[in-house]
Amino acid sequence: MQQVQETLTIITRPKSIVDITAEVGRVVQSSGVETGLCVAFVRHTSASLIIQENADPTVLADLERWMSELVPENRRWAHDAEGPDDMPAHARCAITKTSETIPIRGGRLALGTWQGLYLWEHRAHAHRRNIVVHVMGI
Amino acid sequence: MQQVQETLTIITRPKSIVDITAEVGRVVQSSGVETGLCVAFVRHTSASLIIQENADPTVLADLERWMSELVPENRRWAHDAEGPDDMPAHARCAITKTSETIPIRGGRLALGTWQGLYLWEHRAHAHRRNIVVHVMGI
Amino acid sequence: MQQVQETLTIITRPKSIVDITAEVGRVVQSSGVETGLCVAFVRHTSASLIIQENADPTVLADLERWMSELVPENRRWAHDAEGPDDMPAHARCAITKTSETIPIRGGRLALGTWQGLYLWEHRAHAHRRNIVVHVMGI
Repeated sequence: MQQVQETLTIITRPKSIVDITAEVGRVVQSSGVETGLCVAFVRHTSASLIIQENADPTVLADLERWMSELVPENRRWAHDAEGPDDMPAHARCAITKTSETIPIRGGRLALGTWQGLYLWEHRAHAHRRNIVVHVMGI
Repeated sequence: MQQVQETLTIITRPKSIVDITAEVGRVVQSSGVETGLCVAFVRHTSASLIIQENADPTVLADLERWMSELVPENRRWAHDAEGPDDMPAHARCAITKTSETIPIRGGRLALGTWQGLYLWEHRAHAHRRNIVVHVMGI
Repeated sequence: MQQVQETLTIITRPKSIVDITAEVGRVVQSSGVETGLCVAFVRHTSASLIIQENADPTVLADLERWMSELVPENRRWAHDAEGPDDMPAHARCAITKTSETIPIRGGRLALGTWQGLYLWEHRAHAHRRNIVVHVMGI
């Protein structure tokens, strides 16, 4: 059993959902692990991970729109010193994922045909986001 | 340290929540792993996993009803080519889980007394769903 | 590759969000694992885990308030035998996490500067909650 750990840096645009499947897949492939687990972990509390459909970009637009209504900025938040988009970003993280775990099979992420791994930037400004990718297996 | 990976196929009914604890537990037991981790991963973007109470079936009925109001079908979704239940299914997946990780203890899933592992079919039609179960440990 | 598994018992206050970062970090440090994965798993269906900002306590107060509106107690729930806060607790668990997986780096949890690991008590009474911590690595 072996393991590899690497940190990816992703530059996001405001309130965007960025496909990071290829970057994470590259860590798996360069690790040489054929069968195992891959964990992606976001080191932030205002950006998060989701696994979503990779075919139609309107899915991601719908998600952002729906989420902005589920967690409205114009609500009376006590934590507002960092701007109206900050506390909603924390709430969005609470109901999406800080980490995703994906099995590795045949040296690749065992994602379904229509699955992609996405980083969701919840803030209204661009950010540098760090994601630790940990691969474990044989 | 050893690992076993197996793919389960579950036939779902429309908008149902299916108990898969026994099927996943069987993979753990046949692996011979005494102490370790078990990951279940759904290879779809319109069905997801939850860990929930296994005692009273009305819990699952309440969950489906509440979720159908949290993510309404009659909202104006841009992604609607696959039917009114498709985009809500993606949104439900974003806030539930694509994978669950459960420790293994004494050769069994270390679930609490009232915990079961469930596959949630979010589409309005029956589907064949594939779940990769990965067991790692000693 | 080695592994360590330990069960933590946390006494919660009603509807509180408890920082368990130090307790889980202690398991990692005493395991001697330098590089690997740490999984925390709650063995209950009415308390869950989140990773959140650790700087300003109003973040946690805002989260509890927002969540209590997202999953109202005064909704018509079919499962109500254990009190009005019980079914909402199950629904809150469905959209937060039963487990969190955190990479280990340099013998410590690879959390970002502002990240803490929290146990969220969703019931209106204090409880003893068991969390299995599983550490795997080298």
